[in-house]
Amino acid sequence: MAFALRLAERGLCTTQPNPRVGCVIAHGERVVGTGWHQRAGGPHAEVFALREAGDAARGATAYVTLEPCAHFGRTPPCADALVAAGVARVVVAADDPFPEVRGRGMEKLRAAGIAAVSGLLREPARELNIGFFSRIERGRPWVRVKLAMSLDGRTALAGGESKWITGAAARADVQHWRARSSAILTGSGTVLADNPRLTVRLQEGEDGSRFSAGMAGAGNDLVSGGIAGGAAAAFSPVTPLRVILDRRLRTPAGSHVLDAQAPTLLMHAADAPVPPHLAGVDRVSLPEGQGGLDLHGALAELARRDVNELHVEAGPALCGALLAAGLVDELLLYIAPVLLGDTARPLLALPPLAQMADRWRLRTLDRRMVGEDIRLQLRPER
Amino acid sequence: MAFALRLAERGLCTTQPNPRVGCVIAHGERVVGTGWHQRAGGPHAEVFALREAGDAARGATAYVTLEPCAHFGRTPPCADALVAAGVARVVVAADDPFPEVRGRGMEKLRAAGIAAVSGLLREPARELNIGFFSRIERGRPWVRVKLAMSLDGRTALAGGESKWITGAAARADVQHWRARSSAILTGSGTVLADNPRLTVRLQEGEDGSRFSAGMAGAGNDLVSGGIAGGAAAAFSPVTPLRVILDRRLRTPAGSHVLDAQAPTLLMHAADAPVPPHLAGVDRVSLPEGQGGLDLHGALAELARRDVNELHVEAGPALCGALLAAGLVDELLLYIAPVLLGDTARPLLALPPLAQMADRWRLRTLDRRMVGEDIRLQLRPER
Repeated sequence: MAFALRLAERGLCTTQPNPRVGCVIAHGERVVGTGWHQRAGGPHAEVFALREAGDAARGATAYVTLEPCAHFGRTPPCADALVAAGVARVVVAADDPFPEVRGRGMEKLRAAGIAAVSGLLREPARELNIGFFSRIERGRPWVRVKLAMSLDGRTALAGGESKWITGAAARADVQHWRARSSAILTGSGTVLADNPRLTVRLQEGEDGSRFSAGMAGAGNDLVSGGIAGGAAAAFSPVTPLRVILDRRLRTPAGSHVLDAQAPTLLMHAADAPVPPHLAGVDRVSLPEGQGGLDLHGALAELARRDVNELHVEAGPALCGALLAAGLVDELLLYIAPVLLGDTARPLLALPPLAQMADRWRLRTLDRRMVGEDIRLQLRPER
Repeated sequence: MAFALRLAERGLCTTQPNPRVGCVIAHGERVVGTGWHQRAGGPHAEVFALREAGDAARGATAYVTLEPCAHFGRTPPCADALVAAGVARVVVAADDPFPEVRGRGMEKLRAAGIAAVSGLLREPARELNIGFFSRIERGRPWVRVKLAMSLDGRTALAGGESKWITGAAARADVQHWRARSSAILTGSGTVLADNPRLTVRLQEGEDGSRFSAGMAGAGNDLVSGGIAGGAAAAFSPVTPLRVILDRRLRTPAGSHVLDAQAPTLLMHAADAPVPPHLAGVDRVSLPEGQGGLDLHGALAELARRDVNELHVEAGPALCGALLAAGLVDELLLYIAPVLLGDTARPLLALPPLAQMADRWRLRTLDRRMVGEDIRLQLRPER
C-alpha cells in the first residue's frame, strides 16, 4: 500500500479535480501490476494496474489507495474490472468520500466473492487527497496559506518592498505547492501592489510529481522516495485557476492576472460596477461579510468549481481574515534569516488578544530547510 | 583533541572567568591521563591529566585545548609541569589570546626539547571559549541575545503579557544558556514590567555541564556526547552577575534583582539621583549615548569586570539598540507555534530600512526543536 501511495503521488499535479489514486497488484511479495490515475477523463489506477498484470491478476491481491468506484462515470466501474480480472483480494486505504456511494465498491467486490478490506494506511491516503476530501466532505477547499517572512515576522518594508525576503530555493519550492493546487487565491490589494502572475513556473524538466517527496503531510515518510516501477507520467500539471477577491473590481487593465497564461476568476460585490477591461473576465458576485466579501461564500463557490486545494498568497489583511474566520487549514511559512525591524509590515492582521491564553495555537506538521530558509507546515488547532 | 574538548566542556559553567580547558595524555590510542579545568584558582587541566598519568606521562603526547601557560598565576606554569613529567609531544588547539604571552608556552616546551604544535581543532576550541577570547581580544564580552517569540514575531500582547509564549522545555533550556554566561543583562523597563529574577534555575541534579551538548556552536558535533573518562565534576556553576541598564535608577525597592540570590550591578547616568533603597547596590555610572546609556561603554565596563559571555534578556528597545550598534554577536531565538497578531509587541525596535538590500542578514549556526518550539542560534553577518 505504501508503494501504491507513492504511485498515486505521481498524479499530484495532474489529476485535478479527481483524486490522486495508486494501485498495486501482487502475489505475496511479487508485484505483477502497478498503476496510478493520471488525469481526469483517463483510466483509473486499477485499470492501468490490471492491464499490466494481465492474466497474472487472477488470484492476486489488489492494493488501492481509494475505494474502487462502483458506478459509470467517464470510465466504467473499477470494481467490475477487478471482478472480471479474477482478483482474489482487494485492500483499500481510504473509503470513498461521497456518502451516497461509500461502501458500494466494497459491497460489489464482496458480492463477487472477493475478500475486500479497507483502512490500511488510511491517514496518509487521506492526506494525499486532503483537498478532495475537504471539498466533498466539507463543501469547501483545503485552504493552505503561504507566507514568507523575516525572523522578526515581517513580510515587507514599510514602503511595501517585499522582493525578496526568502531565497531562490524557497521561491522555487513555492511553485510546487502552487502546482499541486486547484486554485491560487489573492486579494485585489496584492494585485495592485505587486502585480503577481500567480502562475506555476517549474524548472526545466520538472513535472510537479518529482518534487512531491516531502510535500505531503503525515504520510510523508510513506510516500516519499523514488518510484520503483511503472512508466513515467508525461502529463502536464493542470493549470491552477487564479482567483482574485476583488470586491470593487479594482484589478487594473494590463495586470498579469488578466493575461492568457491561466484562467482567472474575479470575486466581487454584487453592486460593483464592471469596468470595460474586466467585461470579458470570468466573474462571480458574492454577498458581503464583515469588512469584505463573505469568505465562507467564496470558499463554497470555489468548491462548486471543483477546487480541492486552494493555495493562498495574499496580504496580512486577507490572510488574517481567513484565519480569524477559522478558514485556514494549513500555514506554509517560510522564514528567512534576516531582520527587518518593527516598522516593517506585519505577517497577519488579527483581532487583538485579551490574554495569552487566547493565542492561536498551531501544530507543526513538518519543518525543514529550503536553502537558507526554514519552511514550516502548520495546522491551526481547533 | 576532540576528547579533550569534551572534557573542557565539563567546565562550561564553573571556570568563569577562566577559560574552559581540557587535556588528554596518550601513548598513541592509549589514554593514560585526562583532566579539565574546574574552577578559577583550582588546578589547570594539564595538572589533573599529569596527576592521573603519573609515570606514564613520560614519552607521551599531551593534547591541550588551549596553549599551556608559561607564567606563575594562581598556580605554577603548566608548561613547566609538562616538561617535568617528561612528555614527548604537546598538541595544542588554540593559542593563548593574550598577545603579550601568546607563544610563550610553546617556546618553553620547545626549549625543553618537546615537539609542540598548535592549531588542531582550533575553531571548536575557540568556540568553546568564545566569550573569553572576545573579552581578551576585543575588550568586550560575547553578547548573546535571547528572544522568545510567536510565529509572527511577537514577544508579548499589546497589554504586556508575555507569560508564556514558549513551552516549559524552552524555558528550561534558557536556564542552561544563563548558566554558562558570566552575566545576564536587562533594562530597567523589563525590571519594571516583568520583575524578573535573572537567576539560574537548573533542574534537580543538573550541574550545567550535563546540558552542554548542543550548546556550543561550530564545534558542536565535536564536543557533544558523553564523557568516557575522568571523575565527575562536583562544582557548582558560578552565579552570573545581574546587570541592569538603569539610566535613571528606576529599579523599584523589592525588585527580585535586588534580592540576595545573585550579585547585581546597576549601570546608570552620572547625574541620576540614587534612591535610598539602591544605596547599597553595586553601581557604575556611564556616559550617555544616543537615546540611552553608551552601550559600547557598558560592554567595556563588563569586560573589565571579567565578563566573558553576556546573556541578554531584554525588551525590543534595548535588544534593537544593541543590534543597531553592531554589538550583538549572537541571537538565540525561540519560536513558539502560536500566533499573536499584529497588535502584539514586536521582536526588535530597529531603524526603518530604506530598501530590502539593507536588511539585517544572519547566519544560522544551529537549529533544533526544544519541545514544541524551534530554537535558532544565529549570528549577524558583518
